[in-house]
Order: sequence, then structure tokens, then C-alpha cells
Amino acid sequence: MTGFFDGIDALRYEGPDSDSELCYRHYNPDEVVMGKRMEDHLRFAVAWWHSLAWEGGDPFGGQTFERPWHPQDDMGRAKLKADVAFEMFEKLGVPFYCWHDADIRPEQGSYRDNLRTLEEITDYMGEKSEGSGVRCLWGTANMFSHRRWMSGASTNPDPDVFAYAAATVKGCMDATHKLGGANYVLWGGREGYETLLNTDLGQELDHMGRFLNMVVDYKHKIGFEGTILVEPKPQEPSKHQYDYDAATCIGFLRKYGLEGEVKLNLEQGHAILAGHSFEHEIAVAVAEGMLGSIDMNRNDYQSGWDTDQFPNSAPEVALAYYHILKGGGFTTGGTNFDAKLRRQSLDPIDLLAGHAGAMDVCARGLKAAAAMLEDGGLERALEERYAGWQRPEAQGMLASDLASLQTRVLDEGIEPQPRSGRQERLENYVNRFV
Amino acid sequence: MTGFFDGIDALRYEGPDSDSELCYRHYNPDEVVMGKRMEDHLRFAVAWWHSLAWEGGDPFGGQTFERPWHPQDDMGRAKLKADVAFEMFEKLGVPFYCWHDADIRPEQGSYRDNLRTLEEITDYMGEKSEGSGVRCLWGTANMFSHRRWMSGASTNPDPDVFAYAAATVKGCMDATHKLGGANYVLWGGREGYETLLNTDLGQELDHMGRFLNMVVDYKHKIGFEGTILVEPKPQEPSKHQYDYDAATCIGFLRKYGLEGEVKLNLEQGHAILAGHSFEHEIAVAVAEGMLGSIDMNRNDYQSGWDTDQFPNSAPEVALAYYHILKGGGFTTGGTNFDAKLRRQSLDPIDLLAGHAGAMDVCARGLKAAAAMLEDGGLERALEERYAGWQRPEAQGMLASDLASLQTRVLDEGIEPQPRSGRQERLENYVNRFV
Amino acid sequence: MTGFFDGIDALRYEGPDSDSELCYRHYNPDEVVMGKRMEDHLRFAVAWWHSLAWEGGDPFGGQTFERPWHPQDDMGRAKLKADVAFEMFEKLGVPFYCWHDADIRPEQGSYRDNLRTLEEITDYMGEKSEGSGVRCLWGTANMFSHRRWMSGASTNPDPDVFAYAAATVKGCMDATHKLGGANYVLWGGREGYETLLNTDLGQELDHMGRFLNMVVDYKHKIGFEGTILVEPKPQEPSKHQYDYDAATCIGFLRKYGLEGEVKLNLEQGHAILAGHSFEHEIAVAVAEGMLGSIDMNRNDYQSGWDTDQFPNSAPEVALAYYHILKGGGFTTGGTNFDAKLRRQSLDPIDLLAGHAGAMDVCARGLKAAAAMLEDGGLERALEERYAGWQRPEAQGMLASDLASLQTRVLDEGIEPQPRSGRQERLENYVNRFV
Amino acid sequence: MTGFFDGIDALRYEGPDSDSELCYRHYNPDEVVMGKRMEDHLRFAVAWWHSLAWEGGDPFGGQTFERPWHPQDDMGRAKLKADVAFEMFEKLGVPFYCWHDADIRPEQGSYRDNLRTLEEITDYMGEKSEGSGVRCLWGTANMFSHRRWMSGASTNPDPDVFAYAAATVKGCMDATHKLGGANYVLWGGREGYETLLNTDLGQELDHMGRFLNMVVDYKHKIGFEGTILVEPKPQEPSKHQYDYDAATCIGFLRKYGLEGEVKLNLEQGHAILAGHSFEHEIAVAVAEGMLGSIDMNRNDYQSGWDTDQFPNSAPEVALAYYHILKGGGFTTGGTNFDAKLRRQSLDPIDLLAGHAGAMDVCARGLKAAAAMLEDGGLERALEERYAGWQRPEAQGMLASDLASLQTRVLDEGIEPQPRSGRQERLENYVNRFV
Repeated sequence: MTGFFDGIDALRYEGPDSDSELCYRHYNPDEVVMGKRMEDHLRFAVAWWHSLAWEGGDPFGGQTFERPWHPQDDMGRAKLKADVAFEMFEKLGVPFYCWHDADIRPEQGSYRDNLRTLEEITDYMGEKSEGSGVRCLWGTANMFSHRRWMSGASTNPDPDVFAYAAATVKGCMDATHKLGGANYVLWGGREGYETLLNTDLGQELDHMGRFLNMVVDYKHKIGFEGTILVEPKPQEPSKHQYDYDAATCIGFLRKYGLEGEVKLNLEQGHAILAGHSFEHEIAVAVAEGMLGSIDMNRNDYQSGWDTDQFPNSAPEVALAYYHILKGGGFTTGGTNFDAKLRRQSLDPIDLLAGHAGAMDVCARGLKAAAAMLEDGGLERALEERYAGWQRPEAQGMLASDLASLQTRVLDEGIEPQPRSGRQERLENYVNRFV
Repeated sequence: MTGFFDGIDALRYEGPDSDSELCYRHYNPDEVVMGKRMEDHLRFAVAWWHSLAWEGGDPFGGQTFERPWHPQDDMGRAKLKADVAFEMFEKLGVPFYCWHDADIRPEQGSYRDNLRTLEEITDYMGEKSEGSGVRCLWGTANMFSHRRWMSGASTNPDPDVFAYAAATVKGCMDATHKLGGANYVLWGGREGYETLLNTDLGQELDHMGRFLNMVVDYKHKIGFEGTILVEPKPQEPSKHQYDYDAATCIGFLRKYGLEGEVKLNLEQGHAILAGHSFEHEIAVAVAEGMLGSIDMNRNDYQSGWDTDQFPNSAPEVALAYYHILKGGGFTTGGTNFDAKLRRQSLDPIDLLAGHAGAMDVCARGLKAAAAMLEDGGLERALEERYAGWQRPEAQGMLASDLASLQTRVLDEGIEPQPRSGRQERLENYVNRFV
Repeated sequence: MTGFFDGIDALRYEGPDSDSELCYRHYNPDEVVMGKRMEDHLRFAVAWWHSLAWEGGDPFGGQTFERPWHPQDDMGRAKLKADVAFEMFEKLGVPFYCWHDADIRPEQGSYRDNLRTLEEITDYMGEKSEGSGVRCLWGTANMFSHRRWMSGASTNPDPDVFAYAAATVKGCMDATHKLGGANYVLWGGREGYETLLNTDLGQELDHMGRFLNMVVDYKHKIGFEGTILVEPKPQEPSKHQYDYDAATCIGFLRKYGLEGEVKLNLEQGHAILAGHSFEHEIAVAVAEGMLGSIDMNRNDYQSGWDTDQFPNSAPEVALAYYHILKGGGFTTGGTNFDAKLRRQSLDPIDLLAGHAGAMDVCARGLKAAAAMLEDGGLERALEERYAGWQRPEAQGMLASDLASLQTRVLDEGIEPQPRSGRQERLENYVNRFV
Repeated sequence: MTGFFDGIDALRYEGPDSDSELCYRHYNPDEVVMGKRMEDHLRFAVAWWHSLAWEGGDPFGGQTFERPWHPQDDMGRAKLKADVAFEMFEKLGVPFYCWHDADIRPEQGSYRDNLRTLEEITDYMGEKSEGSGVRCLWGTANMFSHRRWMSGASTNPDPDVFAYAAATVKGCMDATHKLGGANYVLWGGREGYETLLNTDLGQELDHMGRFLNMVVDYKHKIGFEGTILVEPKPQEPSKHQYDYDAATCIGFLRKYGLEGEVKLNLEQGHAILAGHSFEHEIAVAVAEGMLGSIDMNRNDYQSGWDTDQFPNSAPEVALAYYHILKGGGFTTGGTNFDAKLRRQSLDPIDLLAGHAGAMDVCARGLKAAAAMLEDGGLERALEERYAGWQRPEAQGMLASDLASLQTRVLDEGIEPQPRSGRQERLENYVNRFV
């Protein structure tokens, strides 16, 4: 026991009326929702980077958190961090965790040394994982923090960086495979550009497409059965990022022949930055059969950077889970909290409270989404609105052509009369559940 | 002669030092730039809707312009509007015009009557076109203003509206073909949704894909040799529009098998609203071989709606034309001003001044872009930055795999050293030309 | 009875578990919250413009609603509109209404005729008001829709428009006074500029300050006991509006000596467009003692124009009422719905459902806010966080100077240690109530 | 000589046609513009933080620059940094510099030690300043980077931090006074809040007002003749910052009796983040007589964080200087480059090129602004537009009242006719000069 959380008990479900500062009021892992345990629906994961590695800096200020494992520059402190991590998973009762290589191992300066320490720390994590039953939801490679990645990874103008990226991803995929990871994620924070003036956009996209094909090939070669996921984000750190949003990523995957192999890891905050609602991104992915997993957080709608806050709006989260459940729910994916404490939230209890509040919000959202689906009001409204398309002549129109349709309009004197979209009534309906 | 522009002479090229209020200081149609006449590069078009039909309203106020052809409810005034239009084209010396059906004919209430008046007014326009030599750059159907389109055209929940849309597009394609139009455009301002709560996004996209295939089939059937173009815009009027941006449209076209048949009509203001620079959208389209035409205007970066102002920043326009010229320049496309006067700019001279200033800005942009290409500084910088990829071993890496690349990194001890991206030096370079 | 709402009963409170499509689940006028009836806390008002006058147009499309009182060009239809309005107030059970002159009377083209019809229609409304007990929360002058206002009202470059604005406001204040209005509002939608190039900003602000002083003088002259309110909005329709946000308005009022005479009417959507949360604007006004009234609606965070939707997020509304209750609640002000149906919501039932859902959301918000205040958790957290300032030496510091404070820091070796801001814990706390 | 810029000559004015990579094409210090040397108009300053201290990090990545004075943790490297700084000023030929305490001295951990090293390094800078003739435009205290400031400086809930802030500002004002600084600046990056839930906004503003009064008192006490400046910014790092924009700051200054004592330091990027154009902020300050100085940079209009890029748009900069010149030009203020290299711009030459390009852009802007003023076209347009207000009866109206103005409108039958705002013609006019 590290003592980091001394004096704080493991969180328990105490129901909505509890006035404990730290408990679950809504998240009850064993409660059955639409025939499945809540834990198996939500598949919560804690992310190493924000919850453990991040030191509280922002563009105008340095470290505010002072954790016993800071600075993160040797293996001893890396293991201490892992010890605290598993204590945290146990306090919270979460079934999964996620990581980048750079979060879990100390930076050693060379590829060879970093690979060795990655192997060592993931062996250590593997033992703790086995002991605790907390599993790896996904691993990933941080190819954006070190200065070597400043101009991109697979899209770098320097072929050596492409090679280095390939080697890095291989190391991380091997480690994810060893840890039994359910997915492997690629986020291309520097796959994009700062200025078009120095960028060959077409070539860079081709290289990124080729790289992702290598990743898929390697997955099959080693027998990794998890899902390969890419993560849309429009910008920040780069001025423009190629994986802009769900629709852009899907177009990219289709162009490079990957639409059957790769799915999406969608983040609320990234959706917001791209000008979309989170449920929009989910609905787009579901419509294409490409929903993989989610990074649950919230972005301040009025701050133009990635604020990565813990979610706190049950109504918003409910709409996200509604579309996830409509799409069949998670298979290999889950709900990873890509969320960081505000940098003024210094205390260990803040760390647990941030996650616990978020898990409760998700549990409320899930239950509201399930209740809406079971009640069926939205589905009935959709069926009614599109009922005309069930008629055979309507289906026939889709197999027709412009000239025939013009003839029909003229012959039948068609003058369509609009019908109410009933938006406010549907919004009121949703408010009965959230 | 209608007398609308009484007292205003046709604009002439007077050079940069002229102090006339109304002349060209930079646009000189016959001046040769990179081996081609300026007029043939830029292919300017005036748009009927903003320049002639729009009455000056905004969401908080009504008509401010009082033109002799207002209200636009009978054929007499429709013809007067056409007369003034051609007088305006002549005053300005523009070679092209663009139109929606609803701009040029009076609304008659029924499909049959609207089709008849469309035929009548396009016959009239055709005569004037022949007489003046001013040609149709593109035609399009307005499927967003009338209340019948309030829930979409090809994506409408009501199959009758799909049929009506098909009939409408057929009528407009026929008219465009008759007028010798160089392109036919589709803008889906209501192809999208107000709320996901009442929307079957997957079905609507399938219908839109099917519709666009019908349009392409019809083009071939009637032997129309122009290009079919779709026009990206992220939102407004709809909360979300399916043709969000260039990348989204390209993904859509590829999904529905249309990537060889349909190109993009890109608008500066729509790029801005989607969070992109105009040159980004152009570069994306050029990289895919899908640049068709442009709607030149500017959006206020700090107003979140479509401000459709005349362009006035030569440096910005220069970067747009730089990417257009790099992509080979326009073939069937051109520079259409989808720009409207501010609603306080009441006078006929304002209408000419808006266009003339914009044409001068475009001419400056074109000349600056050509000068940069001829000087070659940006191309050299790109070549140098990506030079590593010319080496055979770098090309070999693209045909390699993750494991081999890891071996190479380990064996050769590769530790890439970043090199300056030189952004400020390139920006300074550009500033030598604009 | 006009028959417009035929077949729809008056709404009743049925409690949270009701499955009626149209009822109150949370708004129960006589329920006592913090010692006051809910109706007396919330003081709901329906706005004539959006709920009755608006025809469903947007910048890309025309009328979608087809009401029996459209087009609104004669007194008969103006009275029919008023009849339906009072039927609607009764169906909904709201105690107040709000209006612009242009919403209630037909536009007659001249000041004299408009004044006469304003008097006639407000007499008619006064009778209905007396009969029904539904009162006027506030009146206002529409000085932005007609083309005469295109360049501003009190800030117009043309002195005649200044005079016209003065005459118009006098007429509207007289009518508000006659109707027993609780407040009089000024919204300066065109008091601002389209371009600084043609604007003398300093002079325009001075004129606006002088104008508002005339309004205050007139209020006292006629013995109007309501509150004069100005309404912040950053832009739209103008590119820049002088009443940008609460802080800007307060600075303006102080400059022109009006801080004791004029308060603010704050709108959620305008707050969002200015980059603020609604509770921020309220807290700023409360801190200055200048909170007057609110326009309750919601703006889509991801659409850059004024979407004026009915509120549907109880958690957001709860924070707004929390700050209102902390500031002592409304005196002359109330909760006016400056919200319009989506233009696809065509049916009379949509009109009632939009308001009813919004009233329920406000009732939930109010009750949650009251529960938080009664529980006192947020107040205790504030007291604890700022407790240091209660010490006499801390208060002494405020009366001190830089040099003395430096001495103290040096002598006492002060090195402050940061303490947790506890944001996530406070957010979790709020989520126990919403 | 440090050798940092080895091989790079001092920049010379070579005129617009030069094809040197590093020279001035437009900035010619001795060239006379409107009766004053260009250098004396523009008063360029280099900022220590971005140009020397910043290491190239962003929220997703660490240091990219590797300067000989990194890490900045001892006095030796602080002096090396100062040596390079003055070499840079000389290469560029700039007359001024600006600094925060934290940029110039190594962080020592305690107030006493930081004060001592601040005195030592400013003595060292003073000698170099005297030797070179390069002067201090302004100094300031960094009260946002160290964790002690995480919850604000003068607005901190902890009174000890208020005292620490007072001591810190006193030290920096003393140093600025010693260096002969022309101004002293306060930027309140953490004077604001992360969440209203833990914030007493009214009390914090009162403390900030009291603090600024202490600063003004101390200025007079020590006989510092420079100007005290505050710097508006809406957010980042804080979610909301009290010095939101120019209008908010001016309202604040007036409330706390400081409108005659404190002026504004306006930054282009901060204007953009607040939703304003730079010229708007300048015009607001000029109208109130509160323009102090400017931080010249540019913010990416499409990135929602503070991008602090070197300016590169001559047309935009021209409008800024137009309003500065109209307001009488700088007195104690100047043009400070609060701009940083892109983090990929690693080379010493990039550092010079960034500044040189920006200086040329400013010189172009200044000359265009002067030419417009000398031509007088915009002034004439303003005079004409507002000419009506010159009439005595118009001035009389301002001294009148609502009732008299109504009488006048009725008696004279006033129905104002709108006149064109001529925006496009004025934009075209500006384009003749930029």
C-alpha cells in the first residue's frame, strides 16, 4: 500500500439520497439494465495520462500537483505510479485502464532504452492486472510529446521519423497484446499541419494511409484480436489534424481500404471542438458500423481548446448512450475517462471525486437512455415520420430516374405539404427521462 | 436600357494609381498571366440571388433595397431583373453568370407553373446571353427556401418531396443545358437535420447518395458535358448539413461510387464556418482531383453566420489562387461571387463597386499567386523539406512492415533530429508577393 | 373563442410520472418554494414576437407557419392575434406577457398612423388583460426591423432618426404605462456598427447615453414606476453592438450616470453569443445590484447565430436561478420566454408544448436552486475558501500599501501554499440536486 | 559576443525589391511619415518571454528549442540570455524591450531570493541598456506561472497571496523605474475564475480594484512617470478573466476611480479571442482617451486558444495603426511583439526572421494608415455621413426630451429615408492603400 489514498475508503453504491461526499449514488455495477450488468455496459476505464501522469501545467503555468512519483524520470517512480494506479482502480471499482507508452515508463532518450523500460513496466502492470482483475481497455503510443514528433509521426517529412513511428507502434502493440488489451488506439495529434505553406498534404495522407495498413497487417500477424481504433480530433496541438472528425476519418479509412478493419474511438471534447455534438459523432459512426469506443469527458463549449473536464451533464451523456445502445452497445470498446482534474484540484480526494462524479453521471445517462429505448417513444416517432418510405411505390422511386419522377410529379400534380417535425415535443419527451 | 445604372459608365482598367471611384486598378482581362489571359484564369461570374434577387433582409429586419423589379412576383419584373442583370454584366465586363430557378422566375405555387415560367425566363436569358456573349457558369435548383423543403429535399422524410426534388433538378438541369452551362451545382442547405431526435441519419444519407447518382445518370442521358458539383457547408440553415466540408463530401462521394463523376464547388465563407481556411478546402480537393469551381466571398471570422461579404483581402485570396493554379487552374469552373452587399448599401453604384472591388482583389491575388509560382520559392522549400522521401530506401520503407522497421531503427540506432519548419520565413516570403 | 387551440385542454400540473403529452410535470404554480409560490418566483411571460408574430422564416427560407392572423397587415388580424394570445396565456396559465409595438399592431407606414393603431391595439389588449388577470411584464419598441432603422436608432447618423426613435419610445412607454407594465425594455439591435470605416463610435455612444437619460427622465415625468432595462447582446443583427454584454452595459450606464436608474434584462442566448455562461451574466449583474429581468431561452452552443430555442437543460437553468435567488429573486422582473419554435414545428400543439416543456425545465431549475440554497453546501464552501479574509489583519492589508506589504512578506517570510479549489467536488454536489 | 547569431549580419533596409532572406523591405527607421521618424512612430519592442524564455512547449508536447541558456535555473544562464537578447536587439535595430520578472531572473523559490536575483539581473540589463541605447518599454510581474498564483494574485481567496502579489509588483515596479521604463503593465491571467461555484466574484473585483489603486499610489510615491497599463484578455488561462476586453476594463477602471490614472495595453490576439477586431479595441480605447500601448501579434481566427503568432497581414495592421494615428499616436506606449515562433521554427535565423517580417508588416501598415489619413477619404466620408448632426436644431435635440421630439415628429411629419452606408466603396478605398 502506497498510502497515497490513506484515510479514504473504497467507494460504495449508496443510492441517490446519500449525503456522503464520496460514494456512488447512481453507479451500481451489478444492477441490470436492459438485460446486462451496468458494469458490462459502461466498461469504465481510467486513463494513465490525465489521472496519473499529468502534473497540472497549462500554457501559462507549470506544475501544480506534487505527487510522490514526480518527476517521472526513473523506474522506481514509474512503479510507484503503477502501484497508486491500481489502488485507485480498486478504490473506484473500475474494470479497465488505458495508457500511452510515455505515461507509464520513464523517458530514456533512445528507442532501445525506451523499449526496454516499456517492457519492464508492462510486465509489472501485467502482474498487478492479473492480481486485481483490472484489465487493459487499450494501449497507445504517444507520438506527439517528444520533440522528435514535432512535425508529425507517420506524416513526417523525415522518413526516419516514419520508421521510428513504426517501431514505436510495434512496441506498444506488443505490450498491449501482452496485457490482453481489448483494443489498440492511434491518435494523430501531430498528423496534420501548422501551415500549408510547408506541407505536401496529399503525400502526407498517403503515408498515413500506408502506415495504418501496416498496423492492421501487424495486428493480424501477431494474432491480436482487439480492435484497431483511430481517434478524430480537428486541431490542437496541430493547426489542422487529418483525423478531423468522424466523417473525415471514415472517408480516409474507405480511401485506403481500411473500412472493414479500423473503427473509431470518439471523444466528447473532440466532437465539440469539431463543431459537432457528441451524439452526432456517435450516430455517424453507428450508421457506418464503425463505432469502437469512447473517450468520455466534456469540453467547455466556450473555451476553444481541449479542456478535458470530467463529464457532469447527465442529459448530454444520456443522448450519447442512447445512440450507443441503439447501435448495439460496446463490444471491445468502453467508456474511458480522458478527463483531467482542474489544476487547482490538488488533493487525492479530488482525483477520486472527479472519477466518481463522472461515473455517476454516466450511470444516470445509461439508465435514462435505456428507459427511453424501453419506452420506445423516440423510435415510434421516427417510424411515423418516415412511414411514407415503407410504401412500395416510395421504394420504387429510389430505383427510378429523374425523368420518370418528373413525369410522376406532373401527372399526379404532387404538391407536398409539410408536416410538423415535433422537435419541442421530442425534447420534452427526453426530459421525462433525464 | 432599363435606366437602373443611369449615369454610370462601364468600368475600365485604369491601373493601380487611378483615383476614380469606380474602375479596375488590377483586373485587366487581356493581361497575360502564366501564359493565359486574366479573364480566362479567373472566369468571373455574377450570382443572380445575391446581386439581383436579394432584398436586403436579415433575421431581424426586412427589405432595405427597393429595386424596380421588387416584388418579384410576375414575369414582367422577372424580365426587367434579367435586363438589369445583363446591363450589369456589361458594365462590369464579366463573362459568366449563375442562377437558381427561384432567383430568375417568379414563384407560381405549383410545379407545373414554375416549370413553365422557368422555361420562359431561361429562353429570355438565352437570347440575352447570345446577344452579349455572357455565358452561364452554372445553374442550380433552390430546394431550401419554399416551405415544402423545410425538412430537406432528397433527404426528406416524405417520399413525395424526394420526387418533387427530382423533378425540380431535372427542370433546372434541362435549363442549364439549354443555356450552355459549364457546370451544374447542388447545394444541400436543408439536406441535414435540426435535431437527431427526429432524424434517421443513415437512411437520409443513402437517399442523398441515390439521388446524386440519378443526377449523374441524367447528365449522361441528355449529353450534358458540364461538371456536376456539390457544395460543402457545415450548417445554416440546418443545424447540421451532410455536405459539411470538402473531406466529408469526398468521403460521401466515394461511398456512393461518385468520386469520378462529381466535383466540389468550394466557398470561402463555408470553409470558414467549417473551421477551415479557404486554401485548406482547395488543397484537399486538389489532392483528390476534385476541385470544380469556387464561390468567392468572405465570411466575417467573428460572426458565426454566413455573412457572404465581397472578398477584400488580397493576401488571403492569393493563397486560394495559389492552390488553384498549382492544381492546374479552372477547367469548367470559375470564380462566382456568392457575395451580397451589406444591407445598408442601397445604391446602384454600391452594387457595381462591390463586384469591382472584389474583382480587383481577385486579380491581385491571382497575380501574386502566379508570381510565387514563377519564382518557385515555396516549391523549392517543399522539395527540400521532403527530400528524404526521394531516397530509394525511404520508398522501400513504405512497402515494408512494422517489424522490419523496428529492426532497422534498432540496428541503425536511428534517433531523428528535428529540423526547422521555417514557417515565419515562408510567411515572409509570401509577403513579398502580396 | 378563436378555435385555434380547438381540442387542446388547459394544461394542468400532473406530477413527474404523468405520461400525458401536454401537462406540467414540475411547474405547480401554488407550490411553495423558499416561502414563496412558484408562480411568484418565476413570473413567466410569453413574448408576442416569437410566439405569435414570427412566421417561421430564416435567412435561407420564408414563412413556414400559416396562422389565421397572417399576413399581419390589418387591425382585424392584429386583434385575432391578440385573441389567440390570451387564449394561449390561459391554456398555459402564465401570469405575464411581453411585446414590441411592431408585434402587436399592423405596420402602417407613418409614425402618426402607427401611433394610432398602437393605441387602439393596446386598448384592446388592456381590456383582455383586465378580464384575464394576465399582466404586462414589459413593453418595448422595435427599432430594428423597418428599413428606417437600418443604421441605428438613437445612434443613427441621421438626426431625424434620433427624433423618430425618441417619438417611438415615448409611444411605447405610454402604452406600457397604460397597460400597467412592470418594466420597460430597450434592446439596441442596430445600436452598433457594420464597419468601423463609416462609424464615429465615440459620438454614437454619447448619443445613446443621452437618449437613455431622456428615457429615464420621461419615466419620472409620467410617474411610471416600472424598471427601465437594457438588454445586452454582442452582435447580430449588427456586426458589433454597443450593449455587448453585462459588464459592457454596466460600464456604459456608469459613464452616463445611469447606474442607479437602469438595470439589465439578461438573455441566455445573448450570454452564449458573448462567450459567457448565463449564470456569469447574472452573477455580474447581481454583484452590481443591476439584475432586472431575464429572457429565458437557449442558444445552440455550436451555432453562431441567435437560435432562440426553448430551454431544455434543467442543470443549466438551475445555476441561473441559483444566482437569481442568491441575489434576492425577481422584484419587477420575471422569466420571459424569448424563444421560438423550430420552423418545422408547425402545429398549435407545438406552440403550447414548447412553452410547457420550458416552464417545467424552469420549475425543475428553481427547485434545485432552492434546495441547494437551503442545504447551504455551496455557501459553506465559499465561506471556507475565503475565510482568511475575515481576519482583521487581512482586512488591514486592503487599507495598506505596496511597500508595507512587501515589508510584511519579507519579515514574515510568507510563501503561500495553494489549497485545492475542489471544483469537481462542488460539481458533484450540484449534481445531487439537478 | 555569445556566438548565438554567428554568421548573421545586422538587418538593413534594402527596399521592397530586395531578394535577401533577411532584411527590411519596408521598415526604414529614419524615413519620415507624417512628420515623424518611422522608428518614433512604431516604437518596436522585443518581449523577453516569447523571444528568449519560451522553450517551445505546448499542451501536448515539451521543449523543442534547445538554447544555450536552457534550463533557465541559474544566474549565469540568465546573463547569457540577456547577452543574446541585446545582440538580438542590435541585429534587429529595435529601440525597446519588455519583460516579466520570471523571464529574466532564475526562479529561486522564495520571495527574498527572487527579489535579490531580480535586482542583480536588472542591474546587468541596465548596464547593457545604457551601452546599447535600447530602452525598457515596460516591465511587469509574472503572477500566473508559479503554482502559488493558481487561484489568482490580487483576487486570490488567500490574503497571503494578495500580500505576495503586492510585494511582487513593488519589486517589479522598482526595477522598471530603475531601468527607466516608459510604462508598467499588469496582465491578470489568473484574475478570474475556473468555476463560479467556488468564486465570490464581487469580492474578488473589489480586491482587484483596491490592488490597482495601491499600484497607482506607489507609482506616485516613487515618482515613476511612466504609464500604468492593464491588458484585456477574455480567457486562457482562466475560464473567465475579469479584464475581459477594453470596454470591460474601462468600466472597471471607472468603477474604482482609476479612469484618469490607468490606460490599456491592447493585444491583437486577445481582441480576437474576445470576439473583436483589433481596431475595435483600439477605437474603444481611443474614444475614452485610454489607449496606452499595443502588443502586436496575430491570433489564428480559427484556433480558440492564444496562438501569439507574428503578424503577417499588412491590411489588418494598417487598420490598427489608422486608429492609433487618428488618436494621436503613441506617447509612452509602443509596438511590443507579444509573439512567439512556431515551435517547429528551431533556428536562430527563424527568431530574427519572425521579428523582421513582423516589423515590415507593421511598417507597411503604418505607411498605408498615414497615406489614408493624408488623403483624407475616410474622414470625409465620416463627416458627410454625420453632417446632419452639425445643424443647430440637431444639437438642440440632444438637449430636448422625448415628448418634445414626439411633437416634432408629428408636427413635421418626419419619415426618415435611409441613405447608403457605402461600406463596399469604403473597403475599396482602403484597398487602394494596403
